[in-house]
Amino acid sequence: MSREFFTARTVGEALAGFRPARRTAVEDVGLAEALHRVPAADIRAPSAMPGFARSTVDGYAIRAADSYGASEGLPSYLDLAGAVRMGAAPTVVVSHGKCVAIPTGAVLPDGADAVVMVEYTAETMPGTIEVTRPVAPGSGLVRADEDAAAGDVLVSAGQPLRAPQLGFLAAAGVTTVAVHARPRVAIVSTGDEVVPPETAVLAAGQVRDATASALAGLVREAGGEPVVAGIVLDDRDALESTLRSALRDADMVVVSAGSSVGARDETAGAVAALGEIWCHGLAIKPGKPTLLAECAGVPLIGLPGNPLSALVVFQLVGVPLVWRLAGAERPPPQPSVRARLSRDLASATGRLDVVQIALRDGVAEPLFGPSALLSVLARADGYLVVPEPATGLDGGTEVEVILYR
Amino acid sequence: MSREFFTARTVGEALAGFRPARRTAVEDVGLAEALHRVPAADIRAPSAMPGFARSTVDGYAIRAADSYGASEGLPSYLDLAGAVRMGAAPTVVVSHGKCVAIPTGAVLPDGADAVVMVEYTAETMPGTIEVTRPVAPGSGLVRADEDAAAGDVLVSAGQPLRAPQLGFLAAAGVTTVAVHARPRVAIVSTGDEVVPPETAVLAAGQVRDATASALAGLVREAGGEPVVAGIVLDDRDALESTLRSALRDADMVVVSAGSSVGARDETAGAVAALGEIWCHGLAIKPGKPTLLAECAGVPLIGLPGNPLSALVVFQLVGVPLVWRLAGAERPPPQPSVRARLSRDLASATGRLDVVQIALRDGVAEPLFGPSALLSVLARADGYLVVPEPATGLDGGTEVEVILYR
Repeated sequence: MSREFFTARTVGEALAGFRPARRTAVEDVGLAEALHRVPAADIRAPSAMPGFARSTVDGYAIRAADSYGASEGLPSYLDLAGAVRMGAAPTVVVSHGKCVAIPTGAVLPDGADAVVMVEYTAETMPGTIEVTRPVAPGSGLVRADEDAAAGDVLVSAGQPLRAPQLGFLAAAGVTTVAVHARPRVAIVSTGDEVVPPETAVLAAGQVRDATASALAGLVREAGGEPVVAGIVLDDRDALESTLRSALRDADMVVVSAGSSVGARDETAGAVAALGEIWCHGLAIKPGKPTLLAECAGVPLIGLPGNPLSALVVFQLVGVPLVWRLAGAERPPPQPSVRARLSRDLASATGRLDVVQIALRDGVAEPLFGPSALLSVLARADGYLVVPEPATGLDGGTEVEVILYR
Repeated sequence: MSREFFTARTVGEALAGFRPARRTAVEDVGLAEALHRVPAADIRAPSAMPGFARSTVDGYAIRAADSYGASEGLPSYLDLAGAVRMGAAPTVVVSHGKCVAIPTGAVLPDGADAVVMVEYTAETMPGTIEVTRPVAPGSGLVRADEDAAAGDVLVSAGQPLRAPQLGFLAAAGVTTVAVHARPRVAIVSTGDEVVPPETAVLAAGQVRDATASALAGLVREAGGEPVVAGIVLDDRDALESTLRSALRDADMVVVSAGSSVGARDETAGAVAALGEIWCHGLAIKPGKPTLLAECAGVPLIGLPGNPLSALVVFQLVGVPLVWRLAGAERPPPQPSVRARLSRDLASATGRLDVVQIALRDGVAEPLFGPSALLSVLARADGYLVVPEPATGLDGGTEVEVILYR
């Protein structure tokens, strides 16, 4: 197809330019279901946190001025006026010359403006506390709104929720959050030779569908909900009908095109009938025959038929799209490791090269062989991206390998 | 407690030495549920893969010897004997002087030992194919067992399954895998001042349970199933009874001890009555008052009462334990990034220091302030580990920040 040559793009252009506006609906979920979900709006503190001035040490609540000048040689002596219990309102007030015993985390009693650590005190006589170090006002405590004032933003819209943030929301009493629904990603496989993985015995020339299961895993990792839509023969009408139905039910459609040129043209033809093709051809190896389209607002990615190529493209272009559909501006960080390249790698300028890598003792070993080999999928610990401007990498170079989780 | 001083350990000692033998039961799950699950045994190929010699290019199946010496100036001429269809058994044989058209992925016909790419051929006369480059035997194809021979290990026991591996298993026809069950991790919170996150209005001195929600998130990320067991008052009998019941139902128990010294002693006392304390005290800041124990084979971690300290310890010591319970020798890689430290960091030799970090434009900004502040949980992008031997880090040093996901 001539289109392939006219609308080829770089991966960078695709990430910057192919940005469908669609977002999933907003739903309320409890904190237990909120991990890695994306808040649809800033979440604010309903009231000040911690809500009361709180001791951060075990010790005595005092007026700081009563400790000024205190030393080992010349302690301040304060009358013990009582104690504060954990989780209870103080029943005593601290006035000049008095102190109140207080555990870590308890409410600062009225009148006190500091807590002196027990280590710098001694109860030399019953009811009398010796203070051997001066403390400044505000020391040994957090203010009532030091964590957050009422209305402060606790977590921001568009940032996937992390485990520690769930704790902060719980502390604020926010136990339900409005997040974007998990994007439903329909996965369509095509190819006359492709049969379901459950097929026990293959007829000559048949292959089981590897791509759909791997893509489903990547969709899950990206917080999406994979919907495996099955296998379509290399038939234009059948494909168009399957895509039409997938587009109706999903937030995104991924179709692994047949591996032959003819099958790819069928896909492009079917997609062109359903929406607008943004590009056909990506400057990436493997993965060149990639198609990006938007069909009535739903993004559609036509992936190469080769499973490894399909995964490479989906990781680089599809995963950020899944996160975008859920309202996240960028995907969360991926694990990576630095390693020394075991050998020279050639690369063409103007094309992103993605090389599968096995790691051994800090050495990055490129996995080559015919692109049809699937065992690379099992052996690769991660992949290396050789950017467009590079003409290759020398053996021994320190490279960053993005790791499969 | 004197025990605290006698059995304090480094984090390295804990990771190497506290290794309960318990593993979760083995269960069969479908590929759609197998992502990040840990196979209980090596998974082997039921038969050779791909199972037939397969073309890796669009072109013509030939006997390689028929192309020897071919060039643009002096091509080899071969008779076109037919074509192979995708997904079907070949109906023709390649003999000397003949060729058969074949698409990428189709079955190599009998008699052929190579495929020449269409780019190096021309059909000058109907039925006659010109070959302009020599090919070696085996080129343009993969052998019937090149991906795997029958019985080869496809994925190894003890390694959490990655998305690409799911594709490889699907290609092999392995659609059910025997994996370890998700470890059930009981999360017990203690403290007279601690109330459930759902509590709308706090009485003076009360705090909502932040730790349980954050720990539940970390347990999920580690492939475990959090079981939030609720809040227990600082009462030895109540705690012992709750722990006893949690130990019965869970593969691991985590208890966030009260923040006061007395509460910590209560926890240690209750745990000592239920099993064997492996250490009480970790050389880590924050997180020193950590307790590790094994109770009738079930590992138990007593965490510091402060939520941030509790998370730090759970990430360093608890997460690897959850993976171990599921049969994984080590946790999958965590995302991290290199960044320049914005300021000097002091650290004590012999103690692991964990510093929460906010990242801004490649600069790692340590987040300090009273350890009681929970807002650090929301503001931290990750954390920095200053190892035991270090006495500190200079501002401007390049450091590795482990990122929250």
